[in-house]
Amino acid sequence: MTRIARLLPILDWGRRYSRRTLGADLLAAVIVTIMLIPQSLAYAMLAGLPPEAGIYASIAPILLYTLFGTSGALAVGPVAVVSLLTVSAVGQVAAQGTAGFAVAALTLAAMSGAFLLLLGLLRMGWIANFLSHPVIAGFITASGILIAASQLRHLLGIEAHGHTLVEITGSLLAHLGGTNWITLVLGGAAAGFLFWVRKGLTPLLTRLGLPPLAAQMVAKAGPVLAVVATTLAAWGLELDARGVVIVGAVPQGLPPFTLPSVAPDLLRQLALPAALISIIGFVESISVAQTLAAKRRQRIDPNQELIGLGAANLGAAFTGGFPVTGGFSRSVVNFDAGAETPAAGAYTAVGLALAALFLTPLIYYLPTATLAATIVVAVLSLVDLSILRRTWTYARADFAAVAATIFLTLGLGVEAGVASGVILSVLLHLWKTSRPHVAEVGRVPGTQHFRNVLRHEVETDPRVLTLRVDESLYFANARFLEDLVQARVAAGSGITDVILMFSAVNEVDFSALETLEEINSRLRDMGVRLHLSEVKGPVMDRLARSHLIEGLGGRVFLSQHDAWAALTGGPRRDAAE
Amino acid sequence: MTRIARLLPILDWGRRYSRRTLGADLLAAVIVTIMLIPQSLAYAMLAGLPPEAGIYASIAPILLYTLFGTSGALAVGPVAVVSLLTVSAVGQVAAQGTAGFAVAALTLAAMSGAFLLLLGLLRMGWIANFLSHPVIAGFITASGILIAASQLRHLLGIEAHGHTLVEITGSLLAHLGGTNWITLVLGGAAAGFLFWVRKGLTPLLTRLGLPPLAAQMVAKAGPVLAVVATTLAAWGLELDARGVVIVGAVPQGLPPFTLPSVAPDLLRQLALPAALISIIGFVESISVAQTLAAKRRQRIDPNQELIGLGAANLGAAFTGGFPVTGGFSRSVVNFDAGAETPAAGAYTAVGLALAALFLTPLIYYLPTATLAATIVVAVLSLVDLSILRRTWTYARADFAAVAATIFLTLGLGVEAGVASGVILSVLLHLWKTSRPHVAEVGRVPGTQHFRNVLRHEVETDPRVLTLRVDESLYFANARFLEDLVQARVAAGSGITDVILMFSAVNEVDFSALETLEEINSRLRDMGVRLHLSEVKGPVMDRLARSHLIEGLGGRVFLSQHDAWAALTGGPRRDAAE
Repeated sequence: MTRIARLLPILDWGRRYSRRTLGADLLAAVIVTIMLIPQSLAYAMLAGLPPEAGIYASIAPILLYTLFGTSGALAVGPVAVVSLLTVSAVGQVAAQGTAGFAVAALTLAAMSGAFLLLLGLLRMGWIANFLSHPVIAGFITASGILIAASQLRHLLGIEAHGHTLVEITGSLLAHLGGTNWITLVLGGAAAGFLFWVRKGLTPLLTRLGLPPLAAQMVAKAGPVLAVVATTLAAWGLELDARGVVIVGAVPQGLPPFTLPSVAPDLLRQLALPAALISIIGFVESISVAQTLAAKRRQRIDPNQELIGLGAANLGAAFTGGFPVTGGFSRSVVNFDAGAETPAAGAYTAVGLALAALFLTPLIYYLPTATLAATIVVAVLSLVDLSILRRTWTYARADFAAVAATIFLTLGLGVEAGVASGVILSVLLHLWKTSRPHVAEVGRVPGTQHFRNVLRHEVETDPRVLTLRVDESLYFANARFLEDLVQARVAAGSGITDVILMFSAVNEVDFSALETLEEINSRLRDMGVRLHLSEVKGPVMDRLARSHLIEGLGGRVFLSQHDAWAALTGGPRRDAAE
Repeated sequence: MTRIARLLPILDWGRRYSRRTLGADLLAAVIVTIMLIPQSLAYAMLAGLPPEAGIYASIAPILLYTLFGTSGALAVGPVAVVSLLTVSAVGQVAAQGTAGFAVAALTLAAMSGAFLLLLGLLRMGWIANFLSHPVIAGFITASGILIAASQLRHLLGIEAHGHTLVEITGSLLAHLGGTNWITLVLGGAAAGFLFWVRKGLTPLLTRLGLPPLAAQMVAKAGPVLAVVATTLAAWGLELDARGVVIVGAVPQGLPPFTLPSVAPDLLRQLALPAALISIIGFVESISVAQTLAAKRRQRIDPNQELIGLGAANLGAAFTGGFPVTGGFSRSVVNFDAGAETPAAGAYTAVGLALAALFLTPLIYYLPTATLAATIVVAVLSLVDLSILRRTWTYARADFAAVAATIFLTLGLGVEAGVASGVILSVLLHLWKTSRPHVAEVGRVPGTQHFRNVLRHEVETDPRVLTLRVDESLYFANARFLEDLVQARVAAGSGITDVILMFSAVNEVDFSALETLEEINSRLRDMGVRLHLSEVKGPVMDRLARSHLIEGLGGRVFLSQHDAWAALTGGPRRDAAE
């Protein structure tokens, strides 16, 4: 593949585009468009923006991803978690409902787009690996709870604000007296209907004779039904006069051309949130893309995905949108509906553009409670508290990371929550490796295999102490090894040789090198020789460039078996002479 | 040892105290006292405090360390790097020369003392391990350069300020026109003399017939000679009237009783610097203590050292001092002079108390240029740029950590420098482990030993792919392994079995567990069985609690040899049937 084809994957799949692929892509596009209209309006509301911003944020980004992305199924646009991060970040620099808020959201998308592009061009897709599964799972679950809580105000028809669960709950309780009962009935009915659509409609349709896949597709149109029904109700019964909040006038037309701000103050304030949104959005998107690609034995290039998402966010910034990424539910629908190439996304964009041109007057009477119900039902499927039980069973450190991320995200807000989770998981990893497992090993009789003396029946020699170090040696555990070797040698009398078995040592950094030199010189002072065995190639290459090997009291053996034979066999030969 | 004896080591060594030990300790105390007087005055000046604060900071802290510390040779008091950190931290909350500055310095000592005590009681001495050798070496070197630069103003008799090398140099150049030539000659002569004392006096005295150790001890008194000579010159020639800055009136008497501030604002501002000073001070002190203890085959208890240093800093806080720690040069002098127990420190404290009572009037005419010369000569010995070359040869990542720490400390100041160094070394470590070395291995003919196919002549089987993963599996490298296994299996046709050899896998965290389950299910879809071999005990214990093992396509083998025999031997038996 040429360089230009790698940068523009459309040149590759576009050449093989056929009439059959066109049909599949078009069908998927129609289904996704119907699903996306209410979802885009709802996530715009969640992000604190007017509803049309959600539609705008789905058009240019999808087209740009089509040009630069590698996934055939990924559908790019506003998603719940990124919208929550957006309102949290932009809320700190501008008041919701002002023009400044919309500009800040554009700017956030522009910065996120630039950051993603940069990471992609630097081929730094690996940066997403620093978000551990427990942190991601905890963050998504806590975000789902926060989003659902923040939407309750629309279902109750009251004012309530806050970035943490305590703030939101407190604010909700304080305003509870002002509940608008008609809004509550309407929103509750919509939410109940949507839950039923998720759980009950597909089986019903299947029983009525629809093929399972078609039944699923119809069920995905449930939100549209809820939108139509509640809009008609609000219009027919003039519910807006009775306190039900409706969407109101939405501009009719294609996405406008907008310019993000370049005010240095704003850029500085949004820099960290933009980086955070980029990385979290990238992780969400790449996970979806890889899961779907694996089902079709396709491969996703993470660095090219960064470029695709970066272009999509820049597109959002210049067309009145806000930060976007590849969404889970819409991508799955796209995939299940049979989308085969990124072109399906382009057709979806056309569908949404038509909606922006012709359908916006029809949603004048759409109650915001319906959008809130859509959001609540969607995000509650993100909440998965079973991760707490699963990590608890497997490893306490992972449980701690999940629990802390959930707790801090709920208690301090999304940005502090995910940042604390990442820092905590890094610290836990360092802490674990700072006290490595070191086993004294002996030979499994009759073999060349050496195992832990405490777990297996093995042969040992009182003069030769073999310690298998079960960790790479680096600054955080260098001192630990020094203390441990000294204590073990002091404890066992008659030791003449210490073998450090390096089969599990994958790295020796400079701090650890200095420690090994220290251990060697201390053992030499005590009349004990230090040997190394099973040193891996890359580690040996590096040690050979230091002064450790030439000053070593003992030798470096290729295998532990060689070391054992030389050190325990030697004296026996002496005795035989 | 009882619990109380562990907390108060004096109960242990005090019981065995003899007349011979007393003599050795007393002699060491006299030598250290003479050395400490100018050093204490100088480091107080470096910390931005009046000279007597340096004496005060040497009395109570030494006594308290004697009670709680475990090192027989460590001498606690003001040290260069900690004094630099003090002026940097306190300078941000109060103006030098004001009462608020002195109170903030006391408060910093109190907070650092409390923090150290807390770490000691929680037995968290391991926290110091997160400062890698390259970061420490880079930080100390850069601090030495910064300190020397900051003292040039005293040698030139001009005003100059700043926290970074650029600021200090710029400020020096701006004021260079106001150089006081008498100060420069005096300071230059003192510095030249002190350099000569370091390099030339000991050999001279030895040639004159003095025993080498005695010659070294006399040389250590060099700063006192410089103090006496320049003080006499300033007094006799009335140099203060000609613009030479002198120390002036120093209060005569024992250390005062002082109270640190409890103002919440101040405490909040000083919290991070206090933590930083504590950890850096602890690392410096424990390195010195362990080096000296190793020479006498003694052991240092790091957690008890934290308690000793915590008590010393609390002592400094209540007696007009500032943050202290175990200093390198004074401890080495103490050790070389023959100090055997912490009691030597107590006698030094008495000596310094006598100095505070009777000698302070004598230093009225002491030029500050002399103190600056003392500091410059002392800190230049900390500057060791060879660490750059040594790390460059050994490993680029360690070189990057050293270079960044030096560069950022000089460019951004001490706090930002050391913080960046720590963060960078953690990130470098994560980055290295995020792309682990994975070797395809085969059997060394005639043995049960398996090595890298690229480095050794080994036997392989085209149906069986064995990958030795040379790293613990955790969140940062989980995805890497997934991609790698898939690529290798796709590349080699005819593979029926994949063995992951876990001899170097010391941990599998929850993220990696989910990845292994994913790898297993993808291989199963491709008709390939996944096996594990040489899984370490602790790793196996944990995997057994997950669903991985029951869902595994293949088996878990104790050794790679067993796996090899079963998977390559099996089909051969089939063929024989």
